[in-house]
Amino acid sequence: MPEKRYLFTPGPTPVPPQVLAALAQPVIHHRGPDFVRAYGECLERLGAVHRTANDVLLFTASGTGAFESAVSNLTSPGERAVVVSAGNFGERWASMAKAFGADLVHVRYAWGETPDPEDLRGALAEAGGARTVYLTHSETSTGVVADIEALASVARDAGALVVVDAVSSLGAVPLETDAWGIDVVVSGSQKALMTPPGLGTASVSAAALERAGTTTSPRFYFDWEQTRVAQQSLDAAFTPAVPLVLALNVALGLILEEGLEAAFERHARLGRACREGVKAMGLELFSPDDDRSAVVTAVKVPPGIDAAELLLALRDRFGVQLVGGQGELKGKILRIGHIGWFDIFDITTALSALELGLVEAGAQIERGVAAGRAMESFVEAARV
Amino acid sequence: MPEKRYLFTPGPTPVPPQVLAALAQPVIHHRGPDFVRAYGECLERLGAVHRTANDVLLFTASGTGAFESAVSNLTSPGERAVVVSAGNFGERWASMAKAFGADLVHVRYAWGETPDPEDLRGALAEAGGARTVYLTHSETSTGVVADIEALASVARDAGALVVVDAVSSLGAVPLETDAWGIDVVVSGSQKALMTPPGLGTASVSAAALERAGTTTSPRFYFDWEQTRVAQQSLDAAFTPAVPLVLALNVALGLILEEGLEAAFERHARLGRACREGVKAMGLELFSPDDDRSAVVTAVKVPPGIDAAELLLALRDRFGVQLVGGQGELKGKILRIGHIGWFDIFDITTALSALELGLVEAGAQIERGVAAGRAMESFVEAARV
Repeated sequence: MPEKRYLFTPGPTPVPPQVLAALAQPVIHHRGPDFVRAYGECLERLGAVHRTANDVLLFTASGTGAFESAVSNLTSPGERAVVVSAGNFGERWASMAKAFGADLVHVRYAWGETPDPEDLRGALAEAGGARTVYLTHSETSTGVVADIEALASVARDAGALVVVDAVSSLGAVPLETDAWGIDVVVSGSQKALMTPPGLGTASVSAAALERAGTTTSPRFYFDWEQTRVAQQSLDAAFTPAVPLVLALNVALGLILEEGLEAAFERHARLGRACREGVKAMGLELFSPDDDRSAVVTAVKVPPGIDAAELLLALRDRFGVQLVGGQGELKGKILRIGHIGWFDIFDITTALSALELGLVEAGAQIERGVAAGRAMESFVEAARV
Repeated sequence: MPEKRYLFTPGPTPVPPQVLAALAQPVIHHRGPDFVRAYGECLERLGAVHRTANDVLLFTASGTGAFESAVSNLTSPGERAVVVSAGNFGERWASMAKAFGADLVHVRYAWGETPDPEDLRGALAEAGGARTVYLTHSETSTGVVADIEALASVARDAGALVVVDAVSSLGAVPLETDAWGIDVVVSGSQKALMTPPGLGTASVSAAALERAGTTTSPRFYFDWEQTRVAQQSLDAAFTPAVPLVLALNVALGLILEEGLEAAFERHARLGRACREGVKAMGLELFSPDDDRSAVVTAVKVPPGIDAAELLLALRDRFGVQLVGGQGELKGKILRIGHIGWFDIFDITTALSALELGLVEAGAQIERGVAAGRAMESFVEAARV
């Protein structure tokens, strides 16, 4: 029998066949009419997915490149920036702000905690003069999705520009760029946007662009103004990753065809089903058991189980790719991603594989209980 | 009849079907064994194509991103840098060096001229204290391929680090990174490497890495040390463009299977055939009529012909994509790219399309003369 592979990591995520097919088309010139049409459509669809009237700038880069575009365009050395972090990607904001010479105020939680808007309010009041606040919507390393509306509101009240990492949340959980007054949203192609990694995005408000006009940090490739002007004439500033842009356009079309609200609802239901299945196996959740955390289910590794061995067995024996914890959570948690092109059978497969692996490692688990409870939860949700 | 498309631009370039097929494989995790194996192989093959024992750093970015990695890792504000420019991409080095605060000495030629190593020697002597010299191997905007061995030698004599843009030359014309003492070679996936755009590379010498350790320009995404360390354990610093890396690995395998010398010889023969065909139509070459200029054939637009209209007719009526001039050469030249996955029939097709277009626009050209002369040149070369 052919070995089948299952990608249940929180990025990269599975890519639908229509999107893969777009990647394999013969390469076309980036200044020809076919590409220009798709590029324009892609930029428009990005605006719709962000729910913004702002420009969404598209970079050939990983999500980290889009992060850097925010920091390098908004930071002049010595200016005060506040970073809220509770995991690996929040820490990345802090490292990057420091690299660009920001006077960093770090509101730092233990990995896995959920940021409290009142802590941010206190930190902003105490520090004073914060020019920019960097937030993480979905902290992929822990599974926590923050209340970004409330956090953004607090940052705005303090007169700061609000920058949000939405790499693993955009298209999966509600994010209202304009309604919530978020100046900059950075994201990437490889999560809920159902496209391979390689494209980073940054939606930029008028205020953010105005700030960028006065920022002294050196930059070229990620310079917002250069990319904004180029996008206005649908002529990318630098040769874009043609197949990835065509693929992203197809994927965004699929997302908007399903409808953003339907996609959010689907992610919430799948997250709930996954958590219910995990608990039914007698495992403890690491990520919060709430509907907002619909992107990644983080599970505590049960006592007596070696996480690395379990993950290797799942991968090499069953073709199922989950991931462990990053940084300080290494060995302590497992993560099941359900971002983007996922349905209930991906959840039952992930849970069934986990059951197989744990039982082989000596755990006592009633056969099929996780998949059963997940389906039950999924069907219950449909009845509501 | 289905409309067939022909991509004869100097980037992006045609991608072989095996490479396209690699793009369309279901996405795999970048930390799983299949990717790690291909990633390691790809990095090794990049070293072979560069003819270097240095690390070749791989970035998810356009070639311009690889440029920026060189400038941001080598430039501390106020340090003297020399840029030799004779076209659009040389000018890009200059813009970028200025953006990062270099004290720029600009050895600037008219677009289309061939840089003279003695001019560089004079400029270096006059300026003194140059820390870095930025060169362009193949100036894609004009078709000129510089004598990079001689230029690099002059720069080295002056004690400067040597940085070469080989975006459109790597794999097409001879480049001996180590034998010629080139500290940094930047390139991209989308030219002779026969892969879509989206990956940039930088080969870095020990001296270049040492300099980077003392450079004060802020950087994160393009930081060499971060990428170098990550590559050592085959764990990319940031989520890589998985399908592009797999595709590049396939393409590099094809190049090395053909053999670098054979690829160089093929490019030289195709370039000669193209130039002979162009001249047989009574057109004047803009790029030099020498075997080094094997990458792009730039042709002067004949009097009475509107370049933009001609290019549109070729594209929209015949499905043949050539490009015009950039910047100050707009309207004055046409460019035929023959980089990467090209054979003699691509040359005869490009020339035949040009003949059709020119005759329709009123030119007097003997039917088939260009294709005929190109084939003759090609066959003669085989006999030598």
